Amino acid sequence: MRSWWGWGTVDQAINDAECVRLAGQLPGLPDTPLPVPDPADLNLPAPRTHPPASLAPLCSITAADRASHAYGKAYRDVVRALHRQLPNPPDVVAYPRDERDTEALIDWAADTGVAVVPYGGGSSVVGGVEYRGERPWLSLDLSAMDQVLDVDTTSRAIRVQAGTLGPALEDQLRPHGLTMRHFPQSFEFSSVGGWLATRAGGHYATLHTHIDDFVESLRVLTPSGVSESLRVPASGAGPSPDRFFLGSEGILGVITEAWLRVRDRPVHKASRSVSFPSFADGLTAMRAIVQSGLYPANCRLLDAGEAALSGASTDGSSVLVLGFESAHYPVASQLDAAVDLARQHGGTPAEPSGEDSAVGSWRSAFLRMPYLRDGLARMSAIVETFETACTWDRAEELYKSVRDDVDAAVRRVTGSPGMINCRVTHAYPDGPAPYFTVIAAGRRGSEVAMWDEIKQAANESLLGNRATITHHHAVGRDHAPWYEKQRPDPFAAALRHAKAALDPAGVMNPGVLGM
Amino acid sequence: MRSWWGWGTVDQAINDAECVRLAGQLPGLPDTPLPVPDPADLNLPAPRTHPPASLAPLCSITAADRASHAYGKAYRDVVRALHRQLPNPPDVVAYPRDERDTEALIDWAADTGVAVVPYGGGSSVVGGVEYRGERPWLSLDLSAMDQVLDVDTTSRAIRVQAGTLGPALEDQLRPHGLTMRHFPQSFEFSSVGGWLATRAGGHYATLHTHIDDFVESLRVLTPSGVSESLRVPASGAGPSPDRFFLGSEGILGVITEAWLRVRDRPVHKASRSVSFPSFADGLTAMRAIVQSGLYPANCRLLDAGEAALSGASTDGSSVLVLGFESAHYPVASQLDAAVDLARQHGGTPAEPSGEDSAVGSWRSAFLRMPYLRDGLARMSAIVETFETACTWDRAEELYKSVRDDVDAAVRRVTGSPGMINCRVTHAYPDGPAPYFTVIAAGRRGSEVAMWDEIKQAANESLLGNRATITHHHAVGRDHAPWYEKQRPDPFAAALRHAKAALDPAGVMNPGVLGM
Repeated sequence: MRSWWGWGTVDQAINDAECVRLAGQLPGLPDTPLPVPDPADLNLPAPRTHPPASLAPLCSITAADRASHAYGKAYRDVVRALHRQLPNPPDVVAYPRDERDTEALIDWAADTGVAVVPYGGGSSVVGGVEYRGERPWLSLDLSAMDQVLDVDTTSRAIRVQAGTLGPALEDQLRPHGLTMRHFPQSFEFSSVGGWLATRAGGHYATLHTHIDDFVESLRVLTPSGVSESLRVPASGAGPSPDRFFLGSEGILGVITEAWLRVRDRPVHKASRSVSFPSFADGLTAMRAIVQSGLYPANCRLLDAGEAALSGASTDGSSVLVLGFESAHYPVASQLDAAVDLARQHGGTPAEPSGEDSAVGSWRSAFLRMPYLRDGLARMSAIVETFETACTWDRAEELYKSVRDDVDAAVRRVTGSPGMINCRVTHAYPDGPAPYFTVIAAGRRGSEVAMWDEIKQAANESLLGNRATITHHHAVGRDHAPWYEKQRPDPFAAALRHAKAALDPAGVMNPGVLGM
Repeated sequence: MRSWWGWGTVDQAINDAECVRLAGQLPGLPDTPLPVPDPADLNLPAPRTHPPASLAPLCSITAADRASHAYGKAYRDVVRALHRQLPNPPDVVAYPRDERDTEALIDWAADTGVAVVPYGGGSSVVGGVEYRGERPWLSLDLSAMDQVLDVDTTSRAIRVQAGTLGPALEDQLRPHGLTMRHFPQSFEFSSVGGWLATRAGGHYATLHTHIDDFVESLRVLTPSGVSESLRVPASGAGPSPDRFFLGSEGILGVITEAWLRVRDRPVHKASRSVSFPSFADGLTAMRAIVQSGLYPANCRLLDAGEAALSGASTDGSSVLVLGFESAHYPVASQLDAAVDLARQHGGTPAEPSGEDSAVGSWRSAFLRMPYLRDGLARMSAIVETFETACTWDRAEELYKSVRDDVDAAVRRVTGSPGMINCRVTHAYPDGPAPYFTVIAAGRRGSEVAMWDEIKQAANESLLGNRATITHHHAVGRDHAPWYEKQRPDPFAAALRHAKAALDPAGVMNPGVLGM
């Protein structure tokens, strides 16, 4: 059973005793966790709209459905839910079974001025599935559209419905010996359509980092008709229609299906970690590796704090986790070449092993992290992440400057220092994508306001350093003001006019992308 | 000195005697080549508009400038020029020195309703630089904007002006030990801005096939202002502005600058050719190679006719040319692995050599081909190419069916069989990009009409086979009707509205992309 307020499933959640134990590591927190409210006790406002009888069987207005679709899974979402702050839940939650249902729901919404917020796995951490305007609104939950419809084993491509969650996708590919290998941290609770609409970042640390790279064609249901691109491996015919819908976050329509590239399941794997005396040294080594023409599947650099938190190192060193994989060839020599480069740049490789301890412990922490975050949130700790990308020439300065700015904000807001860690999750020949984690003691009842002030400092710091407001968490509503500052004005005008053409009633996910 | 009517430079052109000798291989052609007209004798219509005095120093209305900017370099362009058919040359040719000049020219054009056609190297083969409407028009030649403005050796990226031609780009990178390695067949006479505006395909047969993959950020001068995207290695913030301008072919504005990824110059190279009893066998081997996780820089499959024409084989076999390159690592083992795969799929490798004879002869033919094409055009032969991409599951059928359809058209139009060859120029894990060459005997004076009828059959065949109307030649005006059939209607509406927002006077390259 899915948690209505927090990450994942109810049975995986941190229990009260564990919450208290976790919080013991942060001074200044309350002694007891916030209780988890029962949705039935939330006194949600009554729905302001009702679908017509023909659509009623697809819709729900239960408190559980409305509460669980009110927010995504950002820290501020979880805390608001725990504090019973749900003033504007969806009026209706709909579960279309197919594209025809989806079309009927959107037509009804467009006709009656109801806002439509597409909902895949609900894992948005940027306010992407939460409507903040005045209209009645419909949360359009695509989870019933969860099938792989075609498998082209010759071309290594599949046609898949947008509501398919990560595990269901892999389950349907496994019998064919195929895999998507798109493993965001949200893998278990995020959907193909959500990945596409938000340009999700995935498993591969290099080369094919975003879901964008796996798209052959998209089928998008807009209020003005279906847009289906030609299914070809590549084309040079005009601006790419797929690239226009990728990242559109529902403002133009709902992605209902996609043809995606898949691959043979890897059988050769090799990984190793390398420690560095400083993060800067690690960055230099990482740059050498990604500029060498090697394409490690895993190439993630943890700073000292992140390495300590995950158990990858305890001596203050930074740790680079390297991994190669292939369905066809042994990868040991590629790993050796990358480790050699790391060594030339001051790295000390761990003892070789198929799955060395740093790799293993980091991976476990990675998957468990959202549940721990929820446990700490229940103790009124502030626990959140943000991420970016910049070119190599400014990477070290960005790291220092963002940490300084966020540290200053944490001290100002909480009165104490917090923990600000960084890992580089993806790396390009021209720059890294750093991912920051902030942990600090909050004051019960003020957690969201405190985080929002820290996050504002982080956003301003990213902008001041000319780094993107988001590398793979998307824009949603939370990033919109900063995104608008970074987005070229003529492109904003183009996007606004395109939206007006496709969504003349303006009902599609109003508020995301500043639209 | 550039040829005003044909490919490249005047001194490289095929002379009359060579024209006649070349034509000897095709029965039914005239005995003498079409003479090359002198632009001064063309009696071009008088210019219908004149720029204001402030812009006059940037502009030319000489017959030579107007004639040389009337067309691109498609077969039909060359033949029309040779037949002195230039009823609608540009009224004015302008050579802006910088972005400010460009802006002033566009402002004047927008104010006075003059159509603006951006012109980089003038190598379009799809009617991209030729205006066909009723307005007076300005050919905006960007060749004076030819500088690399910044070199970031840390991030391996450069800022470059749009008018920079291929050789000038490489010349400016060489002192830094860097290279762009974007080598379309038009390399010598095509520009960075043209590559970007048309999504040009380049040197790499796999992985980074289009210029799109090298873009960090674009600066685009639209009639409504400058759009400059943030320079970052990657971003997940909304739909990509760069991907919206890539392939826009001037309808939204003029690309003036770009930050592009470059790389260290390769020092390790290895190549080898493999022959196959049939094209189908070659396709299967090629597919195995690109699906194996190897990324050959060269991976081009020539069918029997193409191999014979280029001297790569004379026994009716198809030839796969494989090449690997790296700035950092020896590539022999990667080549061995690819050759092994080819062998497993029925291939017979040539004797190994650093530069084996098939590779060498094919490359020479590749660079010389446009001049030969012009020589044959002067003899009223029909010589043209077209290209596409499709998924592997339909590749063999596409090859057969397109050849059959074009063969039927050639016989119908010329009364004789022609030569229809194919090579695969780029290959993806999910499909190949086949490139066809058609050579047939034309009737003097009817060459363009004959080719247009053959080309129409080719386009219909591509559409019937659900292959893209263009993989890397772009849409221009020639492909527009078929592009419009393949382009999703809602995306067309989005693009049309975006254009109206950025180019309210509708002066930017009217007619390309069906806009």
